[in-house]
Amino acid sequence: MKIGIDLLGVDDTQKIINFINSYQDNEVELFVYGREEELEKITNRDNIIKNICTEVVLIEDDSARVHRKKKDATMIRLLEDLKNSVVDVAISGGSTGAYMASAIFMVGRIEGISKPGLGTMLPTRSEHKFLLTDLGANVEAKPKDLLNYAKLGQLYVKHIYNIDTPDVALINVGAEETKGNKVYKEAHKLLKTEIANFKGNIEAREILEHQYDVVIADGFSGNVLLKTIEGVAQTFGKMIKAIFVKNLITKIGAILVKGGIADFKKKFDYSEYGGAFLLGLKKPTIKVHGAADEKALYYAVQQAKKIHKTKLYDIMIETMEQGAE
Amino acid sequence: MKIGIDLLGVDDTQKIINFINSYQDNEVELFVYGREEELEKITNRDNIIKNICTEVVLIEDDSARVHRKKKDATMIRLLEDLKNSVVDVAISGGSTGAYMASAIFMVGRIEGISKPGLGTMLPTRSEHKFLLTDLGANVEAKPKDLLNYAKLGQLYVKHIYNIDTPDVALINVGAEETKGNKVYKEAHKLLKTEIANFKGNIEAREILEHQYDVVIADGFSGNVLLKTIEGVAQTFGKMIKAIFVKNLITKIGAILVKGGIADFKKKFDYSEYGGAFLLGLKKPTIKVHGAADEKALYYAVQQAKKIHKTKLYDIMIETMEQGAE
Repeated sequence: MKIGIDLLGVDDTQKIINFINSYQDNEVELFVYGREEELEKITNRDNIIKNICTEVVLIEDDSARVHRKKKDATMIRLLEDLKNSVVDVAISGGSTGAYMASAIFMVGRIEGISKPGLGTMLPTRSEHKFLLTDLGANVEAKPKDLLNYAKLGQLYVKHIYNIDTPDVALINVGAEETKGNKVYKEAHKLLKTEIANFKGNIEAREILEHQYDVVIADGFSGNVLLKTIEGVAQTFGKMIKAIFVKNLITKIGAILVKGGIADFKKKFDYSEYGGAFLLGLKKPTIKVHGAADEKALYYAVQQAKKIHKTKLYDIMIETMEQGAE
Repeated sequence: MKIGIDLLGVDDTQKIINFINSYQDNEVELFVYGREEELEKITNRDNIIKNICTEVVLIEDDSARVHRKKKDATMIRLLEDLKNSVVDVAISGGSTGAYMASAIFMVGRIEGISKPGLGTMLPTRSEHKFLLTDLGANVEAKPKDLLNYAKLGQLYVKHIYNIDTPDVALINVGAEETKGNKVYKEAHKLLKTEIANFKGNIEAREILEHQYDVVIADGFSGNVLLKTIEGVAQTFGKMIKAIFVKNLITKIGAILVKGGIADFKKKFDYSEYGGAFLLGLKKPTIKVHGAADEKALYYAVQQAKKIHKTKLYDIMIETMEQGAE
């Protein structure tokens, strides 16, 4: 299987290079896209294919045009190869906006999908994880878009995590089905009619407690939700750290609860959950964090392998185009 | 000054009764609204005026109609007295939907405000607190509504916290002014033109870190934002507690960092920040949490006093009606 990796766009390219140089996997050929200076640092091996590019997509590039303006950029060359089936899955840590827009233009949408949604797996307090989508790809979502995210999200969780009929919930301002604005009220009706195991509305308060498999939001609120979780987690992390390092006594306290704190950190270490992905595209694109390290890349490659082996995108195309699984 | 308190609608009425019986304040007359059985438990004092009601607003009551259906309910009698200036400020812990809808119908909106917004003060990592509005009163916000929340929010923080020209930020999916959906893009333009000290967009990730005074959101996203903060805080609280109580060693660890953890808890103890309030009404209504205790009531009464003393609502009416302060 052929996995394409964009060397650039992340904060620390060396970490991506380290991952590639150390990754041993007979099932995988790694297609790497970088400039000559980065590619030189990559080991020469049979299952590593180097693609020399001359440009890089920058955060300030116009997302909607960069695929035409910078045809030799690493991210764009990677997507071109994905489109032409030179690679099976694309992984990039570059600008989310540019990556999403370019992927939509170049790789194309599944029939019936007007606007793809961005999804990611998130942890809860228990061992359970769930898929949250859309995270901001579509900030003007229509009820039909939310229905499509539910259908695609269910397929993702079903095939990647082997859950037979994943349950689905809709983020809302209250549990009753009459809650929310027009888009959410109409989306609730569609989900109720068309989605098996639709569990109704959930409030954001329950987000890390509940046991649903797929949680649906419009791109604006989903983005606010994800970033609030990240922000509160970060702020609390800093505050707890400050409590522990205050003096000798608190430092001893920290040592005594070290194991528990490490488990807690590990649970909210998003790099282990793989990257975010666009639901509604014809081919799989994985977006890793800008701060991605060796571990994040490792998990993104495992996610790519699973997506490819389960033929998830073929199933998505078939399901959406035929309107039945 | 006359402060009206709804005895019912909170989880534990006895706590409200305890607060009233123990509260000593020569500046305040407390008007209490309850059924005979609750009012009997209230001390007979000159500055406590008991209003015997026969009905209670329940969570399942139709918010839009309850003010006509249950005219003798404690919450409705309180709002009737607020409307007729029998009391200066109303405090209730009952159903938010019923309280907001009834207050809008009975007390009325300031000229130019089509839909009032719900606001509350929130803590950050530093000593700074900020006003977040709307929290869900208006889930179909128009750009003009967001502008009005910014104007009213600025007046609230200016007069209650003595900040000369409070700065204002708009929640959005990115910092650039072109980010967001149509409503947010248009709101950004209005805020930029009409609000002194408008600082642009902020992402939810920064919410507990930043130093802005007023943060604006539409009611849907604002509700998601507030409930995510609450939910993540609660989940993390439970997880950290579980780490500390695990065994004898971790319990000793807990003792060593006790002081820091207590300060941390205190900062995120929302009861000290007073209740939520509807911005855009002609008279002040404060909403305390359903789980409100003696301390929450104490802070809500201090908030009511400050609102009354500063003549905040007269200033709001004047500013909005004249279009200038």
